Amino acid sequence: MSPPAPLDIDMRGDTDTSSLPVPNPLTVNGVPAWREKMAQMPTGVAAACSSDMFKSPACYTKPKAKCFEHRFSIEAKSRKASTLKTAARFLKNPGMISLGGGLPSPEYFPFEHLDIKVPTPPGFSSEATSKSGSVLRAGKHDIRDGSSLYDLEIALNYGQATGAAQLLRFVTEHTEIIHNPPYADWQCTLTAGSTYAWDTCLRLLTERGDFVLMEEYTFASAAETAFPLGLKALAVPIDEQGLIPNAMDDLLSNWDEKARGARKPFVLYTIPTGQNPTGATQSAERRQAVYKVAQKHDIIIVEDEPYYFLQMQPYVGQDAPSPPPPASHDEFIKSLVPSFLSLDVDGRVVRLESFSKVVAPGTRVGWIVASDQVVERFIRNFETSSQNPSGISQMVLYKLLDEHWGHSGYLDWLINLRMEYTHRRDALLHSCEKYLPREIAHWAPPAAGMFHWIEIDWHKHPGIAAGKTRDAIEEEIFLSAVDHQVLLSRGSWFKADRAVIEEKMFFRATYAAASSEKIDEAISRFADCLRDQFKL
Amino acid sequence: MSPPAPLDIDMRGDTDTSSLPVPNPLTVNGVPAWREKMAQMPTGVAAACSSDMFKSPACYTKPKAKCFEHRFSIEAKSRKASTLKTAARFLKNPGMISLGGGLPSPEYFPFEHLDIKVPTPPGFSSEATSKSGSVLRAGKHDIRDGSSLYDLEIALNYGQATGAAQLLRFVTEHTEIIHNPPYADWQCTLTAGSTYAWDTCLRLLTERGDFVLMEEYTFASAAETAFPLGLKALAVPIDEQGLIPNAMDDLLSNWDEKARGARKPFVLYTIPTGQNPTGATQSAERRQAVYKVAQKHDIIIVEDEPYYFLQMQPYVGQDAPSPPPPASHDEFIKSLVPSFLSLDVDGRVVRLESFSKVVAPGTRVGWIVASDQVVERFIRNFETSSQNPSGISQMVLYKLLDEHWGHSGYLDWLINLRMEYTHRRDALLHSCEKYLPREIAHWAPPAAGMFHWIEIDWHKHPGIAAGKTRDAIEEEIFLSAVDHQVLLSRGSWFKADRAVIEEKMFFRATYAAASSEKIDEAISRFADCLRDQFKL
Repeated sequence: MSPPAPLDIDMRGDTDTSSLPVPNPLTVNGVPAWREKMAQMPTGVAAACSSDMFKSPACYTKPKAKCFEHRFSIEAKSRKASTLKTAARFLKNPGMISLGGGLPSPEYFPFEHLDIKVPTPPGFSSEATSKSGSVLRAGKHDIRDGSSLYDLEIALNYGQATGAAQLLRFVTEHTEIIHNPPYADWQCTLTAGSTYAWDTCLRLLTERGDFVLMEEYTFASAAETAFPLGLKALAVPIDEQGLIPNAMDDLLSNWDEKARGARKPFVLYTIPTGQNPTGATQSAERRQAVYKVAQKHDIIIVEDEPYYFLQMQPYVGQDAPSPPPPASHDEFIKSLVPSFLSLDVDGRVVRLESFSKVVAPGTRVGWIVASDQVVERFIRNFETSSQNPSGISQMVLYKLLDEHWGHSGYLDWLINLRMEYTHRRDALLHSCEKYLPREIAHWAPPAAGMFHWIEIDWHKHPGIAAGKTRDAIEEEIFLSAVDHQVLLSRGSWFKADRAVIEEKMFFRATYAAASSEKIDEAISRFADCLRDQFKL
Repeated sequence: MSPPAPLDIDMRGDTDTSSLPVPNPLTVNGVPAWREKMAQMPTGVAAACSSDMFKSPACYTKPKAKCFEHRFSIEAKSRKASTLKTAARFLKNPGMISLGGGLPSPEYFPFEHLDIKVPTPPGFSSEATSKSGSVLRAGKHDIRDGSSLYDLEIALNYGQATGAAQLLRFVTEHTEIIHNPPYADWQCTLTAGSTYAWDTCLRLLTERGDFVLMEEYTFASAAETAFPLGLKALAVPIDEQGLIPNAMDDLLSNWDEKARGARKPFVLYTIPTGQNPTGATQSAERRQAVYKVAQKHDIIIVEDEPYYFLQMQPYVGQDAPSPPPPASHDEFIKSLVPSFLSLDVDGRVVRLESFSKVVAPGTRVGWIVASDQVVERFIRNFETSSQNPSGISQMVLYKLLDEHWGHSGYLDWLINLRMEYTHRRDALLHSCEKYLPREIAHWAPPAAGMFHWIEIDWHKHPGIAAGKTRDAIEEEIFLSAVDHQVLLSRGSWFKADRAVIEEKMFFRATYAAASSEKIDEAISRFADCLRDQFKL
């Protein structure tokens, strides 16, 4: 997992830029040339690999990450490299016959080939895929036959905890192209999904009794991952841009270890883009300010970013003409809000990446980006738990993303998704504008993600006079909506700290799942429910 | 997760056996009729399911499992059902429009269909698959189109922690057909592989500082899963049949909490069939005796059984005619040594099942069988970690095992594997008989699994006279074998308790990976190495 020796870097140097003191970072168009120059793809069964094989020389011109080992848990510190894998180094000897590892023989994998039919850019719709889609085939011996760098013989066998080199290359290049982390020794490793990566984060970084910083409303499952580990949420106040840096600073600066019965928190869990449930997106300036607070208090930032590529076009209202889609990949990349990873001069960010919202949740494949020292601990953990994500999923993603679409086609796909989600969000907002009673319902148009966060002015509810509590009113509105045949999520379900008393009241609506017609009908029903409830 | 109410059971009663006081357990041939009678397959996105939907009425005539909640860890006890999933119950209302859950719309899954080419019984070889194999297709809307009970629209979306009902049905039926657990409320849940299931077991059952009972030589990764959690291995002596019940009883009966600094262990990790690394298989009598010790000391038995279906034909030596394969499925099933699960009157067994050795490790799909109360805790854990195994893997397994092979074809496949592994093992044993110096190398023919365990009489090593230690001699032999271009695993790598001083010396050889010719060459090289080392 250590970065290559200087000699290796020189060998893989980008000759196009060798006259410059600092090589250029990788770009979409630069990938083919860079791949030709770099070391060969490891294609053996369970071949060892790391992002260092795939990062461009530009990465190594940067300073190394700071050391965060003092943040590792007892569990993380006591993890050691696998005993059985130590023997693998002897396999490099070409004449060696191994009776060592218990790998099943590929002749007993009952699959001759696997085909997937997928869209070919720019025809991304179901109809276009049906007409002009491509069938991609993975055979058992494609590597031997020279037709691919990845095949079922490898994908169906045991693998390394990093995931297969073939898919790791793609996500490493993607990470450099989009985020270009500002320190040298970043690494990626595939994960069995971000939910699992977050669980692992907590086990690597925290001990029972610790607090974890979270947005005051957060993804309920993320909080529920933490609680059974004996962790508590420290709710950071948010506004329409998410985390409020000063509020976070105050909480940390005034931390009273004795009163709290716990050491000062040092893990921040945040969903910076299209936050779940609030839909808030932190601006570049907001992120810089949060990062500074993290530096001041030596915080590790875990950025959970499933919605990063669900950043939509600006909302212009019902009557204005829709802004055109990004005209180029460059314009698209520049339009994206910078990630914490891209600001991370210290190596204090653990970025959780997911294919769930941009390809399919059922792949159960994601990846993380963090400093070498942190990723190495993840890998040690995965070796004795999830091992690696499904090889079949990895194969399907590799065929689609790398062999078929390439980085260019993948960005086309992401731009397509952006426009689709923009359309869906706009439809929802139009319905809200059309139906919801503005006297009591308020919202801001979400700039990213899947969620619309509607504030309800519960103080105007007639139940108040009858002595009903806020919580009883939320319950009543929720059940009334159910009676009106529309299901929304109650804001209180997303409270990070369940003990906090809420002053406001929210409902979360998603525009991801239902059609525009259904969304319109659903919001109309919710409006009826609100009018009933508030006697409007 | 609770078993069905009596009314449900009556409704699903097997009319063929209704005149009998006790209905017959499920058989391979009984599956189609039983499926026709039972409740409909849930086919919605992330539809809730449990083994109770698929177990035959015979299961419910048995007593319920004992309560083992006193064995749950603090982490396990504090797990609660997912907040967001509580809303799912409102979705049963057919007119409801949900803007609740953040599920991506299937139109954005960039896959129109997935095909796999697989063998059709009895043509299981690569050549036969090429000629007579079948292509199985999963489309996006097969459920809507009425062509399948499972499709990509479901498999590619989020799922339940149990795994999809479609594959859960198959493994539940398989479990009843093969093991027929002797208590009523057993359940299955899919897992992201047995390594992960074992990690979860430890987190659900143990606390830092606890001891876990293990075979004195065990799967190194299983021990390495336990150590970083602050657990210690209590090594149970073994013989050629694995765990020695009296030795285990002695260890537990004489447990000195003060001297050990830990409570009496109550989790046994065992690989009862084709044990890794020793190849030992516990006989039926041995298992009964171990189970009795477990009852006496209130032990939970975690049986890790990847090699259960790698039980081979009896070894008859080089010159005797090979015994014919099992003549029927019935004969095959009866030839299998009973699992701990099949003896488990109390519900104290957690059975870890894996497709790694019988289909392909790269699926990263396994399942567990245990009592309802234990499986429920696993499910709560998976909800906030692995979620569920890859939907693409589940789809591939469902198409192959359920739609194409069925239980009958799967058993044909397993019989085929048995004969293949028998052939491989026999080749290895013949080579050992041919080459290895019997003065110093000793072994018993393995009855199951992938491993051959060769004892070396190190006391005869000439290094002894020069004052070399046992460990130094093991190292020397290992490195000498590497020099001879053959890689074996050192026995000491598999010590459960790394502090125990070994009296014996072993090397592990696998017959799973290399061809017969390579195995012959490898053993010949190892023999040369031994003759060099021992000056024979």
